[in-house]
Amino acid sequence: MSDTSDHLVKSFDTDLKKLRDMLTEMGGIVEHQVALSAQAIVDRDSAAATEAVAEDPKVDALERDIEQFVIRMLALRQPMASDLRSIVAALKITGDLERIGDYAANVAKRSIVLGQFSFPYSLGGVAHMANLVQEQLKLIIDALGTSDSAKAIEVWRSDRVVDDIYNALFRELITYMMEDPRNITPCTHLLFIAKNLERIGDHATNIAETIYYAVEGEVLPDTRPKGDSSAYAVVRPRE
Amino acid sequence: MSDTSDHLVKSFDTDLKKLRDMLTEMGGIVEHQVALSAQAIVDRDSAAATEAVAEDPKVDALERDIEQFVIRMLALRQPMASDLRSIVAALKITGDLERIGDYAANVAKRSIVLGQFSFPYSLGGVAHMANLVQEQLKLIIDALGTSDSAKAIEVWRSDRVVDDIYNALFRELITYMMEDPRNITPCTHLLFIAKNLERIGDHATNIAETIYYAVEGEVLPDTRPKGDSSAYAVVRPRE
Repeated sequence: MSDTSDHLVKSFDTDLKKLRDMLTEMGGIVEHQVALSAQAIVDRDSAAATEAVAEDPKVDALERDIEQFVIRMLALRQPMASDLRSIVAALKITGDLERIGDYAANVAKRSIVLGQFSFPYSLGGVAHMANLVQEQLKLIIDALGTSDSAKAIEVWRSDRVVDDIYNALFRELITYMMEDPRNITPCTHLLFIAKNLERIGDHATNIAETIYYAVEGEVLPDTRPKGDSSAYAVVRPRE
Repeated sequence: MSDTSDHLVKSFDTDLKKLRDMLTEMGGIVEHQVALSAQAIVDRDSAAATEAVAEDPKVDALERDIEQFVIRMLALRQPMASDLRSIVAALKITGDLERIGDYAANVAKRSIVLGQFSFPYSLGGVAHMANLVQEQLKLIIDALGTSDSAKAIEVWRSDRVVDDIYNALFRELITYMMEDPRNITPCTHLLFIAKNLERIGDHATNIAETIYYAVEGEVLPDTRPKGDSSAYAVVRPRE
């Protein structure tokens, strides 16, 4: 290998490492946003909510930086094969992370409204969902940092559990609304909070699929373990 | 210009044209999905709903085709500057179109549940929102086909109206729920339908931003005219 091409390969590897570092930094921030928004709901902690919302511009700025960096890498390095796959994957993953940050900020905003209501029911279901989604996110950011396709599959499989909890919660919240009209506003916000958490799980699953593809060069073989059936849910008041 | 490089330029232009055709085909399908799902709600037309849902695998397949085609173009053509921006833009736009298709399918599914309820209120607000979003989508797909950044700005500006209708609708639906518990299930589905339409508008706005960037080489100067304030909405029952 000539000195020049050796230099080019080294600087390409440096760029790839920098790209991965930017992605894991972005992942770390959105993971923190999700943790803060869970805390905001469960502990009625409006300071945590405010902090989760305040992180959002950082996430958006990182997304733009990553996009610019990817375009520069594509232009200067003209990568091939698996390098090219990794770079295109980074572009998709940054989009998913940005959406996760948005959903977390929305959960945090709603938790502030929720704090104005005395709500006589347990928030256990929502808290459980938030914990699971946080765990998914943590695992997938680890998998991203280490290009671990086995861990990516693990996250991909676990999404079914989140969907099941969401479906149960959907019916439960509608039942509370029917019991007392004073529950309608807080439960509506809880419905959207649960939906946002479910969407965060979906985006973690997207990232799992993208990592698998970038590492293995092929798409995941099974059909996706999707299970949000709430679009078809019918709950009627007791007579 | 040598014959070889002339040939390369021509085949690159052919590829760019093919990429744009694939995107406008995908855009046409999701536009049709949104139209069908609007029809499904307003006319209680379950055949239209089924058709909207049935289109979804086509959209997903086109997204995969476009991604593969983009990776091939990046590897074989090693494009620079504005060509590179167009290709990266295509990748982002295909992601937005896929999400729009998903939201339209979800609206269609919920319209089927809605058909099981006699709902004594006008669906005018939802219908109005659906029409506006359809119009946004039509305009943005035109702008995509003609690389028209002025039209992209028009769509970008119009999203504020969709958000305003959504916020009004949110409060209206919660009020109906408080009036009669029998309204809770249909209104919950209508809340999610309205939210999905609002999200479709957001993705049309994303596409507008991406087109503007691809054509002009710079991001839109103003801050985004975002206006979904429903996360903070508080509606209380009348005493």
